[in-house]
Amino acid sequence: MFHAAAKDFMLTKEHIMSQFSGKSVWVTSADRYMGPSIADEFERLGAIVTRDMHVLYDDHYLRETLAEIPDIVIANLAEPPRKDALEAIQDDDWNLLFDHLVHPLMRIVRHVSGPMKARGHGKIVAITSAAPLRGIPFASGYCAARGAQNAFIKGAGLELAKFGVQANAIGQNYIENDTYYPPELMQDPRFISNLSSQVPTKKVGRGLETAKLAAYLADPDVEHVVGQIIPLAGGWTT
Amino acid sequence: MFHAAAKDFMLTKEHIMSQFSGKSVWVTSADRYMGPSIADEFERLGAIVTRDMHVLYDDHYLRETLAEIPDIVIANLAEPPRKDALEAIQDDDWNLLFDHLVHPLMRIVRHVSGPMKARGHGKIVAITSAAPLRGIPFASGYCAARGAQNAFIKGAGLELAKFGVQANAIGQNYIENDTYYPPELMQDPRFISNLSSQVPTKKVGRGLETAKLAAYLADPDVEHVVGQIIPLAGGWTT
Amino acid sequence: MFHAAAKDFMLTKEHIMSQFSGKSVWVTSADRYMGPSIADEFERLGAIVTRDMHVLYDDHYLRETLAEIPDIVIANLAEPPRKDALEAIQDDDWNLLFDHLVHPLMRIVRHVSGPMKARGHGKIVAITSAAPLRGIPFASGYCAARGAQNAFIKGAGLELAKFGVQANAIGQNYIENDTYYPPELMQDPRFISNLSSQVPTKKVGRGLETAKLAAYLADPDVEHVVGQIIPLAGGWTT
Amino acid sequence: MFHAAAKDFMLTKEHIMSQFSGKSVWVTSADRYMGPSIADEFERLGAIVTRDMHVLYDDHYLRETLAEIPDIVIANLAEPPRKDALEAIQDDDWNLLFDHLVHPLMRIVRHVSGPMKARGHGKIVAITSAAPLRGIPFASGYCAARGAQNAFIKGAGLELAKFGVQANAIGQNYIENDTYYPPELMQDPRFISNLSSQVPTKKVGRGLETAKLAAYLADPDVEHVVGQIIPLAGGWTT
Repeated sequence: MFHAAAKDFMLTKEHIMSQFSGKSVWVTSADRYMGPSIADEFERLGAIVTRDMHVLYDDHYLRETLAEIPDIVIANLAEPPRKDALEAIQDDDWNLLFDHLVHPLMRIVRHVSGPMKARGHGKIVAITSAAPLRGIPFASGYCAARGAQNAFIKGAGLELAKFGVQANAIGQNYIENDTYYPPELMQDPRFISNLSSQVPTKKVGRGLETAKLAAYLADPDVEHVVGQIIPLAGGWTT
Repeated sequence: MFHAAAKDFMLTKEHIMSQFSGKSVWVTSADRYMGPSIADEFERLGAIVTRDMHVLYDDHYLRETLAEIPDIVIANLAEPPRKDALEAIQDDDWNLLFDHLVHPLMRIVRHVSGPMKARGHGKIVAITSAAPLRGIPFASGYCAARGAQNAFIKGAGLELAKFGVQANAIGQNYIENDTYYPPELMQDPRFISNLSSQVPTKKVGRGLETAKLAAYLADPDVEHVVGQIIPLAGGWTT
Repeated sequence: MFHAAAKDFMLTKEHIMSQFSGKSVWVTSADRYMGPSIADEFERLGAIVTRDMHVLYDDHYLRETLAEIPDIVIANLAEPPRKDALEAIQDDDWNLLFDHLVHPLMRIVRHVSGPMKARGHGKIVAITSAAPLRGIPFASGYCAARGAQNAFIKGAGLELAKFGVQANAIGQNYIENDTYYPPELMQDPRFISNLSSQVPTKKVGRGLETAKLAAYLADPDVEHVVGQIIPLAGGWTT
Repeated sequence: MFHAAAKDFMLTKEHIMSQFSGKSVWVTSADRYMGPSIADEFERLGAIVTRDMHVLYDDHYLRETLAEIPDIVIANLAEPPRKDALEAIQDDDWNLLFDHLVHPLMRIVRHVSGPMKARGHGKIVAITSAAPLRGIPFASGYCAARGAQNAFIKGAGLELAKFGVQANAIGQNYIENDTYYPPELMQDPRFISNLSSQVPTKKVGRGLETAKLAAYLADPDVEHVVGQIIPLAGGWTT
């Protein structure tokens, strides 16, 4: 076995070096949600990572910041849900979710699509949510905004497929991150009890799991996954 | 058989008269999309139908018009997709889709939820689209807006369920209506060829099919269907 | 309002009389699962209902019994799940589920497909389960068998669509019936607690809800719903 | 950049060596379908791969061959669909699909579940199909058998989750392999035309894409993906 393993390792090293080394990866809102985990993982894989710390991603900002289109775009956008009954939804809360989750995603994809199509390759991985796959009571605004993101990526992924560009989303839930699972929530007995009754794995997953899935979707070898919303939620949704 | 049939008819008459006669049904944008078909069907079933002709459904309009909450709300909202490549999406087109499809749906549901919960019954049937279930290239904005609607109804349906109020959506495609299938499109050879290759039924369905499904979802006997997006699309999506 | 209602009723009567009166409906395993509720409803709607009491539906039985192909086939097949851990699955239990749920469904559809295609119309409504839509631990065999049914109906529905024949399934759960919810279970405190935590409607639905959905799917006016598995499960799955 | 890349590479090497080196991977039907691609990839990643060449996986064979339970089981089972109209389905064809796809999967999972639960870790990755996610006309038997597999894995994945064991499936279509896409089919003009009209990527994907997804699902770091059927089909299904 030893010799085989040694040979395998050589192949592995070479193989992996060829996948992401020298690739440019642009991670949005890199200090929030899955930004840190994903940026760390791509760096570990040898990519050249830009940790962008913006939120709104208006056209002006995109033109200034993203004059050069990266190989891989991680569209990581986050805004905590406002937990409220339907009749108590506030216009400001509702609008904020669309302003911070939906419209920036469109602007980012609009900005990079043309150049990616022109050069015949490119990867867009949106980090969205499993919430709209199953629905969450008292978080309908959040479901709506994340549902808009997921549906947008489906259309975008199908549209870009024949140009050699792949767009997909990771629809996660119950994955550790500071935005949705701050330490105080993670220690809240009601939250722990909810985990136990609602999540088949009975726990919150690690950020590394999302990061590795993002790396799979951004792998240059992977061209056949397009327009997919891949659930990553401890079995909360199948 | 004759006697049996006669008896059955008597039961039928009584049964159906008890379902919708005297029920108030409020149909939004009643002159567009599925409004006419649905309003006609509920009238045929003996309901008291209000054909509302508005588009935006802002709070002021809702307070004025809908001081009394109907038994059944048909949230029928429509705006044609802007068929454009991702890199050519216009902000105005994008925003219009959210302004005409997504935000009015939230405001309508927000307006009726409290009173419906208080009285322990109520039906919300949103007429949305199958587009976000499968994704449509060059119509990502439309997918996004309809996806927001569908995900919102999932959350709303789950939230309202325990109060005796049911919210669901009909995710249709390839159903005749003036908004999306104007006569000139229906005679376009490319459209006809597309029907033949993309739609298993090889045709556009009638508005009555949506109307009857809406009647099923609004039936007082039907309390166990909540938060569902029911596809009605000739097999285009399963 | 009186005159309108009177006119509506006349239309209703005429309309409904034209839908199912004189139509032949064949309900399989009519004494089990959803058989009684569905047979009752179609009789109420004026159809000529045959309550068939078989289980296996082998070819010989089908040739003898179903020499004349009915307008509407309700493929209602049931077998209680064997609740067991994966490592304890018994071959006999596993096989029984396929023998009673999967293979008879294929034989029934195989038997009626040719004649239905030849005459250009026909309705197949399979009463299956929502179990495979979400997955149920300790009931993987049941999930597998119901999943086979649902997938079979998807393929069959898409195949038959262009011939004017519609095949669909109702994927239900938490609907009252003697096979899965015998009275003793309905009074079991653990079951009641499970309902409250897992089912958004917090209750078991009535058989009439499935029966009315079956009537919608079997309605001669409804030709655009094909190959669909429609969930009816109190929001347990969306 | 150079120093960073060098450091990254050191981390990468260490990281990857720790993931699969020394892990035992058992690939079923290793000469068919995705067996070769997956076995190659796990060897490249440093795992100890057993290429098992059986088809039926009856209990006797499993006891003899799999006395020691591997860390990772790749349940790769294949049988070409019989393309036939519903009314022409042959019992032998139908049964063969269940005998070669469905029952062996159950027996394999049944055999490994107990020991994997007992030791608190284990990975099951089933290579199934996207066919039941969308439905394929004239291949209903194949849809049914693959649908049974997918639903079984959903139930199994949810059941095993809390024991630290993860079971998932890859629901692929239009991925190169000798079983479903032999060279003569790949050059058939009708097939090529079908690719162009039905598959958004306009091509058949490489086996490596499935193999890398299998590696993601089998990664010891990935514990939060359970009971998922992940589509990999060039956008044919989203």
